Amino acid sequence: MNYEIPGHLEVKKGHLHIGGVDTVQLAQQYGTPLYVTNEDRLRDNYRRFAKAFKGVPLFFAAKSNNSLVVQRILAQEGAGADAFSDGEIYLARLAGIPAQKILFTGNSKTDAELAYAVEAGVMVSIDSHDELISLSHIAKAHGKTMNVAFRVNPEISGDTHPKLATGLKISKFGIPRQEIVDTYKEASKLPGINPVGIHCHIGSQILEVSPYVETVNRMMDLVAQISKFVDLEFVDIGGGFGIPYQKDVKAPTPQDYAKAILPLYRKRCKEIGISPELHIEPGRYIVADTTVLLTHVNTVKKAYSTFIGVDAGFNTLIRPAMYDSYHEVVVANKADKKSASTYTVAGPICESGDILARDRKLPQVKKDDIIALLDAGAYGFCMSSQYLARPRSAEVLIHDGQAELIRKRETYDDLIQNQLIPGRLL
Amino acid sequence: MNYEIPGHLEVKKGHLHIGGVDTVQLAQQYGTPLYVTNEDRLRDNYRRFAKAFKGVPLFFAAKSNNSLVVQRILAQEGAGADAFSDGEIYLARLAGIPAQKILFTGNSKTDAELAYAVEAGVMVSIDSHDELISLSHIAKAHGKTMNVAFRVNPEISGDTHPKLATGLKISKFGIPRQEIVDTYKEASKLPGINPVGIHCHIGSQILEVSPYVETVNRMMDLVAQISKFVDLEFVDIGGGFGIPYQKDVKAPTPQDYAKAILPLYRKRCKEIGISPELHIEPGRYIVADTTVLLTHVNTVKKAYSTFIGVDAGFNTLIRPAMYDSYHEVVVANKADKKSASTYTVAGPICESGDILARDRKLPQVKKDDIIALLDAGAYGFCMSSQYLARPRSAEVLIHDGQAELIRKRETYDDLIQNQLIPGRLL
Repeated sequence: MNYEIPGHLEVKKGHLHIGGVDTVQLAQQYGTPLYVTNEDRLRDNYRRFAKAFKGVPLFFAAKSNNSLVVQRILAQEGAGADAFSDGEIYLARLAGIPAQKILFTGNSKTDAELAYAVEAGVMVSIDSHDELISLSHIAKAHGKTMNVAFRVNPEISGDTHPKLATGLKISKFGIPRQEIVDTYKEASKLPGINPVGIHCHIGSQILEVSPYVETVNRMMDLVAQISKFVDLEFVDIGGGFGIPYQKDVKAPTPQDYAKAILPLYRKRCKEIGISPELHIEPGRYIVADTTVLLTHVNTVKKAYSTFIGVDAGFNTLIRPAMYDSYHEVVVANKADKKSASTYTVAGPICESGDILARDRKLPQVKKDDIIALLDAGAYGFCMSSQYLARPRSAEVLIHDGQAELIRKRETYDDLIQNQLIPGRLL
Repeated sequence: MNYEIPGHLEVKKGHLHIGGVDTVQLAQQYGTPLYVTNEDRLRDNYRRFAKAFKGVPLFFAAKSNNSLVVQRILAQEGAGADAFSDGEIYLARLAGIPAQKILFTGNSKTDAELAYAVEAGVMVSIDSHDELISLSHIAKAHGKTMNVAFRVNPEISGDTHPKLATGLKISKFGIPRQEIVDTYKEASKLPGINPVGIHCHIGSQILEVSPYVETVNRMMDLVAQISKFVDLEFVDIGGGFGIPYQKDVKAPTPQDYAKAILPLYRKRCKEIGISPELHIEPGRYIVADTTVLLTHVNTVKKAYSTFIGVDAGFNTLIRPAMYDSYHEVVVANKADKKSASTYTVAGPICESGDILARDRKLPQVKKDDIIALLDAGAYGFCMSSQYLARPRSAEVLIHDGQAELIRKRETYDDLIQNQLIPGRLL
């Protein structure tokens, strides 16, 4: 394989290793499917981003991976969190991220969620006028004043999957650009509301710098207007920084982004005569490549394609089935072997769309081999389900050449624990 | 609304009722999102199918809804189960479906699953040559002989979503037609294997009779060859019987299917001079229209479209986001009001694809209204996830004008119960 990253992913004695640990042994020890995350790589990714954006607070997009341990490690590194629900606020707080470093985003918040945010003392990114009014009422009832931003729809298209482009004009997210100035005017008069920021998010898995340049410019145009009557403390331009799932794709580095964004941002601030903090929300970039998903080969079948039937499906990793996403495939126990045939890796789900990887050149694959799907750390476990009554996977963390279980594999009990059968049906 | 089905869905005093119970009151009492299933409708659907296919054993496709209570009710009605995993065997058995009425289907079974099937004494539909060899070894080691079928790929396209067409030539499912005769020959000599059936499944949400006619003909062509050396006890033509999600779509009735399938099947059997049982696997048809999903309106926002932000998203019901599926929308507390505007119903998930219903004419909608998504009983809760740290929904059953909680709403505890934080990170 040609994806070796020294100290992270390496081939030793023909086996794929992560953080120095043999993935084939991990599969044996912990069973499959298994998510394996390398702590060192996670810290490295965060530090690389933080260094490039020195002085810019990073709000980790918890939606990409809200595992407690991942967030705990990032909390130690100094991260804040972009939390999209009350549950994500809960997990981020439990992981040790301070309330003042959490921005509660989300496009359709319940009153209960808003009340939770008020009690937790986090910042709120308001997505609609209805939400502004609700939050004002709730904050007032709690005798609190909330630091808020408004999410604005910048009407920008990053070149990504349509389902992941969140800043298009047609999108459900944010307040239309034309209304944003009036919204700040109204907000600054409402009880319980302290407008301190402005927020946007243009999409996910973006692999170019230019959409961010456009975003900064559009946002600063608005900031110039808003700053006439509101003292903005931060401008949050969201996340969406992509990673090269296909190893021959070129992706910008954090430095590339920083070089394009920071001087422009400072210049625009200077022109306006203000100095709000810049906030950004990397998620996928921090976690995606920290993790491999290990899955066991149950069958190899020559049909129209040669199908490798594995034990992970879209219940485990939904990205390929839902977004036609690409993940590199390594035969973990034959990682030094040459490609021999073309295979399609299929999961155990009852739908034709349950294909993890199509038409890949791999070494000769047999039953009981172990397949590793790379870059599975973002939108992996957190989107998994118990579809077809399949208990969800275990997760392990690699640190210092050792594996630690950080999420127990579910059992049949997890399928029934909340179910109740009325006595008359027994 | 024009979807009233007397005794099932009705409008009374402006509110949508299910099984005589006010959905608006249910939303208040149990919270939202809430799946509500009408037991009478479930029994009716099953009986309608069973009556049309008199004498034909029905193997309920548990993948469509594996809730214990749903399967318990169907067990009382006499159903068997098509189980796609060991977990589904477990749930079906727990619900009271006898082992001899369970067919273990699945395209990529682990050895552990096969061993579970051997211990449980269910029938197995074998999907590949690798699996045949594994099952023979495992059955022999357990001192058992397993009644098996082989799943054959009939190379038929039902007119459905590409992800749901499972009998195409290019599909991952089944043994290629050309190999099936040799496979039976080999199987009949293997220890632990007793080939008694043949199985196929052409897809899901099929709304025509003709693909089933084609399926019977293709299967019986194979049966004619196989019967020369194997005594087939059953021919299982799968399921996939669709329902009219859009109320102006015409869907075949069980009688329509039975009329097309049964005489043809008997004629073909007679020609061959055999009399195996016919098996079918309805799933969606039995459960889809028994259930409404209730969701609460958090915001109404005029942007490019007028978006209704609700508290159910693709974490709750993935079909619209994943398959562009259509569900009828009723404003449950304004079900007698005339349509006033065009709305798009959006969930609370961080992706643009999280749209439950696009451009629907609805009465004037406001915050705190209750929206009902109809026909949510198939591939609903069973595909739901905790994405964005959202606890999964509750489920209630309606019977005799009363509601009973059959699945407790998850809490934050359900998000963390299997997570472990290494001491060194505390």
